[in-house]
Amino acid sequence: MSKGEQTRQAILGEAAQVFSISGYAGTSMDALTRATGLTKGGIYNHFGSKEALALEAFDFARQLIQERFNEIIQDRHHPIDRLMAVVLVFRSIIYDPLLQGGCPVLNTATEADDTNPALRERAQQASSQWRTFITQTVKQGIEEQQLQPETKPDMVATVLIATLEGAIMLSKLYGDLIYMDQAVEHLSCYVQSLGNESGSQRGSLNR
Amino acid sequence: MSKGEQTRQAILGEAAQVFSISGYAGTSMDALTRATGLTKGGIYNHFGSKEALALEAFDFARQLIQERFNEIIQDRHHPIDRLMAVVLVFRSIIYDPLLQGGCPVLNTATEADDTNPALRERAQQASSQWRTFITQTVKQGIEEQQLQPETKPDMVATVLIATLEGAIMLSKLYGDLIYMDQAVEHLSCYVQSLGNESGSQRGSLNR
Ligand SMILES: [Mg+2]
Ligand SMILES: [Mg+2]
Repeated sequence: MSKGEQTRQAILGEAAQVFSISGYAGTSMDALTRATGLTKGGIYNHFGSKEALALEAFDFARQLIQERFNEIIQDRHHPIDRLMAVVLVFRSIIYDPLLQGGCPVLNTATEADDTNPALRERAQQASSQWRTFITQTVKQGIEEQQLQPETKPDMVATVLIATLEGAIMLSKLYGDLIYMDQAVEHLSCYVQSLGNESGSQRGSLNR
Repeated sequence: MSKGEQTRQAILGEAAQVFSISGYAGTSMDALTRATGLTKGGIYNHFGSKEALALEAFDFARQLIQERFNEIIQDRHHPIDRLMAVVLVFRSIIYDPLLQGGCPVLNTATEADDTNPALRERAQQASSQWRTFITQTVKQGIEEQQLQPETKPDMVATVLIATLEGAIMLSKLYGDLIYMDQAVEHLSCYVQSLGNESGSQRGSLNR
């Protein structure tokens, strides 16, 4: 990695933290110079504007979470285990934060939904990637008779993401892990309940 | 209501809308003068600072939703119907918005959790009021044998609030009612499932 590229990545890493705590409107260029140790000129050398930096910082934050998810999903083949990987990566946003400010999708969605179409689109893309993972996992699980045939893929995606994002909001609002624990307990039961009775023994051959 | 009090309430009504759309950091005093048609001096006549106005505007917004809830809860006596009133008032935040920017608790919690202790405390208080309504409803429903005795009041509060706040986030992020519809469908089943089989016929006498 070139020196310039290293600086660029370092700016993105710091900016992702600052934006996650203070939001887009709440982050000044001064705050970004303090966090990065660079001058404004030094930052503008790499990013044309605060908005351009915010968009790339969002993708940087999203990538951090994606990498953690890639570790969790390894060796999980049963659809119930794969759906639980989604629960666990959201749980880790509270239990072992990659970003001090919590979930970049939740933060960016609430701030940008009525104010910033470009940031809003990034949050939509990230949310849609989670939804696609969940719906494809459910569809494949139905095909392979591991999940009940009447399971609705889009419903599962909404229930998982809404409950987990809401639990992140509550746990951060109160500074208390209990809300995430309760969401994880509830969703574990929910995800288990999707299993096909006849095919629910993990590792058993399908009919 | 005195002229001064009328002006004060009009400022709060406009400010609640602007803050709900743009957030605390994203709202300038200029934006507040445009929305209210007053000068900065005219606003400072009634509120000492932007923060003081934001705190009262939060309570104003909370009161709007409380009044709607009071209408919905009327004549609902069975605990399942009372829990569904919570689902319906959150649904109405998407279907018939009182505030253009959605839910003040969700917006304020995500913005203020790491940045503004006073606003964060207001969001905690509002969230705790919902939690208390739900936990008391569940406890009373268990006592009166209308809900299953093993129902966990705090779990029900977290599942309802987290799922509904997450659904508001998704519906506003995509500009699509479907996510709220799915959350309501899921929570209707969940709330029904808490009913005590022996006491689940509405209006029947308890044993
Ligand atoms: Mg918003
Ligand atoms: Mg925050």
